[in-house]
Amino acid sequence: MDTDQRRLSLTYRFATRYASELKSNLKFEKTQDRREAIANADVVLNTAMVGGHQYYEAMRNVCEKHGYYRGINSTEWNMVSDYHTIWGYHQLKLMLEVAKDTEELSSNAWLIQVANPVLENTTLIHRSTKVKVVGMCDGYLNYYAVPKILGLDPNRTKSKCVGLNHDIWLTQFSSDDIDAYPLLDEWVNKESEKYLQRWRLEQTNPFDIRFSPAALDMYKRFGVFPIGDTVRNGTWKYHWSLEEKKRWFGPTGGPDSEIGWNSRLEHQRQIVDSLEKAVRDESTVLTEVVPPWTGDDPVVPLVASLLGLDSGSVHQVNIANQGALAGVPDDVAVEVPAKVDSKGVHRLGVDRLPDPVMKYAILPRLIRVEWALHAFSEGGYDSLFDWIITDPRTNSNRQVDDVITALLSIPENEALAKHFK
Amino acid sequence: MDTDQRRLSLTYRFATRYASELKSNLKFEKTQDRREAIANADVVLNTAMVGGHQYYEAMRNVCEKHGYYRGINSTEWNMVSDYHTIWGYHQLKLMLEVAKDTEELSSNAWLIQVANPVLENTTLIHRSTKVKVVGMCDGYLNYYAVPKILGLDPNRTKSKCVGLNHDIWLTQFSSDDIDAYPLLDEWVNKESEKYLQRWRLEQTNPFDIRFSPAALDMYKRFGVFPIGDTVRNGTWKYHWSLEEKKRWFGPTGGPDSEIGWNSRLEHQRQIVDSLEKAVRDESTVLTEVVPPWTGDDPVVPLVASLLGLDSGSVHQVNIANQGALAGVPDDVAVEVPAKVDSKGVHRLGVDRLPDPVMKYAILPRLIRVEWALHAFSEGGYDSLFDWIITDPRTNSNRQVDDVITALLSIPENEALAKHFK
Repeated sequence: MDTDQRRLSLTYRFATRYASELKSNLKFEKTQDRREAIANADVVLNTAMVGGHQYYEAMRNVCEKHGYYRGINSTEWNMVSDYHTIWGYHQLKLMLEVAKDTEELSSNAWLIQVANPVLENTTLIHRSTKVKVVGMCDGYLNYYAVPKILGLDPNRTKSKCVGLNHDIWLTQFSSDDIDAYPLLDEWVNKESEKYLQRWRLEQTNPFDIRFSPAALDMYKRFGVFPIGDTVRNGTWKYHWSLEEKKRWFGPTGGPDSEIGWNSRLEHQRQIVDSLEKAVRDESTVLTEVVPPWTGDDPVVPLVASLLGLDSGSVHQVNIANQGALAGVPDDVAVEVPAKVDSKGVHRLGVDRLPDPVMKYAILPRLIRVEWALHAFSEGGYDSLFDWIITDPRTNSNRQVDDVITALLSIPENEALAKHFK
Repeated sequence: MDTDQRRLSLTYRFATRYASELKSNLKFEKTQDRREAIANADVVLNTAMVGGHQYYEAMRNVCEKHGYYRGINSTEWNMVSDYHTIWGYHQLKLMLEVAKDTEELSSNAWLIQVANPVLENTTLIHRSTKVKVVGMCDGYLNYYAVPKILGLDPNRTKSKCVGLNHDIWLTQFSSDDIDAYPLLDEWVNKESEKYLQRWRLEQTNPFDIRFSPAALDMYKRFGVFPIGDTVRNGTWKYHWSLEEKKRWFGPTGGPDSEIGWNSRLEHQRQIVDSLEKAVRDESTVLTEVVPPWTGDDPVVPLVASLLGLDSGSVHQVNIANQGALAGVPDDVAVEVPAKVDSKGVHRLGVDRLPDPVMKYAILPRLIRVEWALHAFSEGGYDSLFDWIITDPRTNSNRQVDDVITALLSIPENEALAKHFK
């Protein structure tokens, strides 16, 4: 399902041809009608991004003119331009609509919430509907990098990542059932400097920040290793300026710098272009252009477990806490490992997060969930003002009023301007 | 009990002569030994302020040199120089010591915690000892100003103030059992402008901010009226600069400006000097210099109820929440009305605070409780850094490091420097 006819057709043609090349009997149907897509589903997968990256970038440009440099995924949010905040309105609105359609048209379906902000979306849907919702993010897969860099066999290591989406921490890490954190410490102390020297010369993927100085600094501060997008999710300490971002996230400045983000977008654009070209040329063998994926994927195995196609497995999911993680309210989505089978998602006991993580990474993030959801449901100028007044780049009330006015004046923000007037 | 011999002697002489003039049979004993003072007490009253106001002001001066203008009691703290934060270390340490002495030497005594920060102190003592602790602050008495300004008889009005210390809100206000908020709204709409014109010309007491533009703005934002020190406790919206403070808190800039605070201190100093002079001159009639107080007092009636000298009354207290106020953890001290008698403090059901108050005034304040108590128990440079990095006046990591170095270098901060090294 896609509202964009061209993109829908392209995806459909790619999928059918790809399946046929693999001699798979997967069947595809396409529609521009959301309700038609949702009706009588077993699983609804929502990956939408309202407005796309251009809109995102337009918002950032406006904000940067008013002194708010980009820096998404910060626990101390970029209060202005990024997706948890003002832009979140569009996402939350769409996600809730899809959830309500699911509730009405496929009340027994599982809704897999992949679209960001996963934390806010999953929490909102849990609070506002009876839909069986699971938030899903592939960021946790980055934990494999930890055994890999230590030369350990990932199949013989066990690990547990616990927290909130984009705010998860390696609370358990063992190899052959022996605590492997001492090996990580040894690597940090003896090898990381050499690793970083090389990485500074070679980093091309701005998302390659798993052992960046920011990651190591957060580990030193908190005593547990930050996994995946968590590394992007520190305070402004790592984000003040492009220069600061380069210091902490490498020569690309990481994914949340103008260099890193735009190079990544350009890379994605090239992939989409080459796929489009391949699809339009009937003689191209698609499996040669995009070889079948053999690595880890977070969604398909989860769906298999939910539908009873395996005997039940442990998956990393975002679900309403209900007591799984101490110190987080029951009705907020936590990201934790859980046993999943055809009867549903079964919370496992998880480790308590260390005090500094709870107090300096989890609690500030939880407030921002409440702010985002309150502003979404209630609207009003005051919410925006009260967010931005706490942004560390704010110097005056005038600056707050000016950036709000500028943001609400861009053409794509007409509905948003009404909501927050 | 006072560690300062001169002050102790002065207070003792004042108290005994004053009681004798009133022909009261109150008895006083003085000591410089804390444990002696506490042993076998029914009630322990702690009003101490470590280092006094000079120290407070020295800390502010250091911080202002590094770009952190004063602004205490802000929900979005002044992270650097004021009593909840770095300075809080001394207070928390002393309060916990007194509580532990009380636990050991007078295990059945009530500890009345008047010294600031009442919220953090009371919460810490509740969490760390078995002492029967009640936090007490006279700020709530300012609610009487509301019926008074409306021309209502305070004896025929009822009201309820609920929240956290210095963060309390008028959730109920009635006259002859009829909701009186509409009368307040009428006053705001029709009379407040005239009131403010006059107040701007006449304000001499910097604490006279009960109907200041800041108070009215907070009421407009939150839908419930802020009481007492709550008016000082907004965001930086009201505090950026002296000019901003004057706009919101009148020509003195309110108690948290350099003008307001210093004029208040000077006023207090003059009172203390005149009392000292009066005490040293045996011929002075003290009750003429300080006429007996006939107004409201928050402490004596509370003690009377606790000791069973009345049949039990409702008092405004700070106690561990234990479910009284929805959305606040059980082990954090809330400020609420409670029934008090010789059997103890009995929580009453309190109104849920409106959503905007909970999310924008209470939740941010709760995080700062956790930060202060964690930093107090754990110490370490990182806590200080992580506070100040979120201060809206911070522009760089260097600025954070510089202000911490400067703060920890002042002579009075030797113990603090060790704790936070």
